[in-house]
Amino acid sequence: MALRITPLGGLGEVGKNLMVYETDGEIVVVDAGLAFPRDEHLGVDLVLPDIAYLRDRADRIRAVLLTHAHEDHVGALPYLMREVNVPEVWATRLTLGLLQPKLDEHGLGQATELREARPEDGAVEIGSFRAEFIRMAHSVPDTVAIALEAGGLRVLHTGDYKLDHTPVDGLRTDVGRLAEIGNRGVDLMLGDSTNAERPGFTGSERLVGEAFRQIIPTRQGRVLVASFASNVHRMQQAVDVAVETGRKVCIIGRSMRKNLNIARNLGYLEAPDDTFIRPPELEELAPSEAMILCTGSQGEPMSALTRVAYNDHPAVTVERGDTVILSAKPVPGNELRVHDTINRLAKGGAEVLHQEIAPVHVSGHGNAEEIRTVIGLVRPKAVMPVHGEFRMLAAHAQLARDGGVPAGSIVLAENGSVVELDERGPRIVDRVETGVTFVDGLGVGDVRDVALRDRRHMSEDGVLIVVATVGTNGAQPQGMPELIVRGFGESEPLLDELREESARVLNECLEQDITEIKLLQEHLHDELAQLVYDRTERRPMILPVIVEV
Amino acid sequence: MALRITPLGGLGEVGKNLMVYETDGEIVVVDAGLAFPRDEHLGVDLVLPDIAYLRDRADRIRAVLLTHAHEDHVGALPYLMREVNVPEVWATRLTLGLLQPKLDEHGLGQATELREARPEDGAVEIGSFRAEFIRMAHSVPDTVAIALEAGGLRVLHTGDYKLDHTPVDGLRTDVGRLAEIGNRGVDLMLGDSTNAERPGFTGSERLVGEAFRQIIPTRQGRVLVASFASNVHRMQQAVDVAVETGRKVCIIGRSMRKNLNIARNLGYLEAPDDTFIRPPELEELAPSEAMILCTGSQGEPMSALTRVAYNDHPAVTVERGDTVILSAKPVPGNELRVHDTINRLAKGGAEVLHQEIAPVHVSGHGNAEEIRTVIGLVRPKAVMPVHGEFRMLAAHAQLARDGGVPAGSIVLAENGSVVELDERGPRIVDRVETGVTFVDGLGVGDVRDVALRDRRHMSEDGVLIVVATVGTNGAQPQGMPELIVRGFGESEPLLDELREESARVLNECLEQDITEIKLLQEHLHDELAQLVYDRTERRPMILPVIVEV
Repeated sequence: MALRITPLGGLGEVGKNLMVYETDGEIVVVDAGLAFPRDEHLGVDLVLPDIAYLRDRADRIRAVLLTHAHEDHVGALPYLMREVNVPEVWATRLTLGLLQPKLDEHGLGQATELREARPEDGAVEIGSFRAEFIRMAHSVPDTVAIALEAGGLRVLHTGDYKLDHTPVDGLRTDVGRLAEIGNRGVDLMLGDSTNAERPGFTGSERLVGEAFRQIIPTRQGRVLVASFASNVHRMQQAVDVAVETGRKVCIIGRSMRKNLNIARNLGYLEAPDDTFIRPPELEELAPSEAMILCTGSQGEPMSALTRVAYNDHPAVTVERGDTVILSAKPVPGNELRVHDTINRLAKGGAEVLHQEIAPVHVSGHGNAEEIRTVIGLVRPKAVMPVHGEFRMLAAHAQLARDGGVPAGSIVLAENGSVVELDERGPRIVDRVETGVTFVDGLGVGDVRDVALRDRRHMSEDGVLIVVATVGTNGAQPQGMPELIVRGFGESEPLLDELREESARVLNECLEQDITEIKLLQEHLHDELAQLVYDRTERRPMILPVIVEV
Repeated sequence: MALRITPLGGLGEVGKNLMVYETDGEIVVVDAGLAFPRDEHLGVDLVLPDIAYLRDRADRIRAVLLTHAHEDHVGALPYLMREVNVPEVWATRLTLGLLQPKLDEHGLGQATELREARPEDGAVEIGSFRAEFIRMAHSVPDTVAIALEAGGLRVLHTGDYKLDHTPVDGLRTDVGRLAEIGNRGVDLMLGDSTNAERPGFTGSERLVGEAFRQIIPTRQGRVLVASFASNVHRMQQAVDVAVETGRKVCIIGRSMRKNLNIARNLGYLEAPDDTFIRPPELEELAPSEAMILCTGSQGEPMSALTRVAYNDHPAVTVERGDTVILSAKPVPGNELRVHDTINRLAKGGAEVLHQEIAPVHVSGHGNAEEIRTVIGLVRPKAVMPVHGEFRMLAAHAQLARDGGVPAGSIVLAENGSVVELDERGPRIVDRVETGVTFVDGLGVGDVRDVALRDRRHMSEDGVLIVVATVGTNGAQPQGMPELIVRGFGESEPLLDELREESARVLNECLEQDITEIKLLQEHLHDELAQLVYDRTERRPMILPVIVEV
């Protein structure tokens, strides 16, 4: 019996990871992530995988299995659950803890059975599947790989990982278990490709703690540490140094406060009870007694650090002598925003340490040598690179070839590729429609490409609206057409010329007995577009409105 | 007598460098550069410094002195010359050679006297100023620093530089001359801050040649090398390896072809006559016999490499076995476009080597140790960091303090700061209006912030136009209002509701004797905005059009 594997997201991109495993009429989904909009997604808030494929097979879904709590792996789950019934969600304790409030927000707190994935236990049965969870080190605690078995076929889905031999929580990637699974035989490994292009090893998370220990004790002013709200280990290391150096810790940024509370309650972050203070208490402390942990490492417009940088935070300001540690790397596309934040903070007098100039960040993904190591441990018969842009998948494929996997057993799939795995190996047998679903405000999926194209058009050169009246039965227009322009950069003489041209075009049409509104609009549109382009080399969106009176 | 120094661009930003030096009623300008638009400059083609300050003092301008031929130092010169009379432009031979066609394009070929700056000669007199040109290594040949003397005060304006001790043309930064100028005494040094944050030294340009020599001889397929069109040394090094390995060189990309011809004609690039071929001749060569030099290292939409990547170039395609060397670093903001290009090329089968994974690029700007060295050589009494975002200027200031310049003699100025230098040192004495001038299509300066704000607004949530007719004298409206939406993501039920709401609002207004068009528009706008937000959490631009019939 064959196993069908269909990525609905995460291949050829970084983000919105969602993999469908199907056998014997049953489906388990591994991860259901979202992506953040790119510049061309004007006005869009979130990008989801298009789940039409799952909607059509909704009755077959047995469970969603989550590898870890990052948004690009869990963020689409509430939207998926709004459309299809998901009987069970399997994830580790911290992942469930971080997921629960998200489901509650969407009113889905009771909509599924949350089941704890326990790496220390053996395999669990989920319909026709057997699933086993293997501990992996990553930039959020309690991350797992998932070994799936169905119909005698064995797949290892690594999820995101690095081979950190000195992780902060001591829970290193379980290389012994990976080797054991390799010994049993793995027909196909779907592996994290994010850093496949980068040579060598990713540094241990502990290196960042060492940097904190070098930097923070010498500082007299306040220390702000910005990182991702889910990076509990990063927070733990900052908190440890704060405790050691007699600083109290204040958390600003809603998501970080929420995550920290969950992590503390579940025992994933440890600190003495009197470590944390509330923002108003900052005033009572000398600068050398305070550490501030905050969100905003990506320069996000409304985030805590951005508000601090722009002097817009109710409780926190920076001044000369303060130190800001940006303990994250800008996600591609966020560079300018992050630079703006750094510049603003520097202007405020703070010294800003960021990953380009100080070792205050390490990646959560393994580099080439780590991927080679995992391939060596697992010795998969076939490899399907996942999680990454095409260049990363291609680099991963090269590593697999180097590691002895036959070229014919390496699958470079795309979103929508249907990969069939049987005893002869994997091959792409079909393609299904995939794409993106945009979340914009309250709307999910109602903003489509055409709306984005229009937004882009207007964003380039603005809009020019011509309002003209014509009498019924093609009578001559009444008065001069009116023009409304926005975002165009108009001059009065040009507007006058356009108004006269509109009147001329209309008259000419009517004289030629062209009276149909649609045709009049077309003529107006084309002639005005040409005139505007001749005068300005701009192409505003031109919207002729004709009112019959 | 004091010297007044006013930056109109280049401080607090990377780009549009323009420095005004004024003494005794005479002005010389050092550099007149442009900047490339950021994402928020929707639809804008170029960003220029606002030169109102110079326009008001146009009769005092004696000359523009150029440090080198990069766009961020010369690109605004034609626009400046369209507005004010520039009697002389001083620049080195290659800079003049690259400038001439730009002036010709703007019809300004005869508008000024182009004078060759010769570093090997001594100082020249320009009105009340004495100017001396010092050879500096940078990523375009024939770059100079400028020492200015006026009224007994001596300033060194470094321009962009690195301390490359093995530059490709053998013309290294003239450290002896810098020391000599230092010995004479420098009252103020304005120094390049770009890489002040980065520790250590920037690698020599020659390292890139060494990487080319390692990579290219082992390749069987075509080799494409993409870099900035002005980086003549980079091209020279690629061409040298092509000649050594028996490859012919084909240049694609208009600006690169133009620059290469100018550089060859002036003797800045040397290659045997039969090295270069035209694109159609590529077909006759085996892949192993061809090297392609091209523009597009920034993923610019219409550039040669982008067209190749998207299979849209008339003469060049890539296939399996080809190698693409991206010999440049993405300028912040261009990362995603560059990644798209890499992914497309990788999909086409090419191996893509870029600066993140191979040593195929070095910066043209000196790192911290180089800046320290120059401060040590020149021993300026005072330092004004220029050319860079604030964080870079601040890092440069720190290097100056470390180098023994008293904190009170370090000027952290902004665009528009008027810095007065006299025998007591420099200080900021005034602020003048500065800002940006946008070039959009044929328009220079007609697109302003309000147009950009409107473009941004429409780009977020689109536009909603309501067209309603009312009778004169406040008679009841005729028929239902019409709606036109673009970029909004509308649904029919919502449009129906909005149409009905429009009719209701209009009727209500007219019943209350509100008949003034402006007031009707306001009511319509506010009520529709609220309804749209309640239903969608979106805020399209709402434009009510009321036609009186």
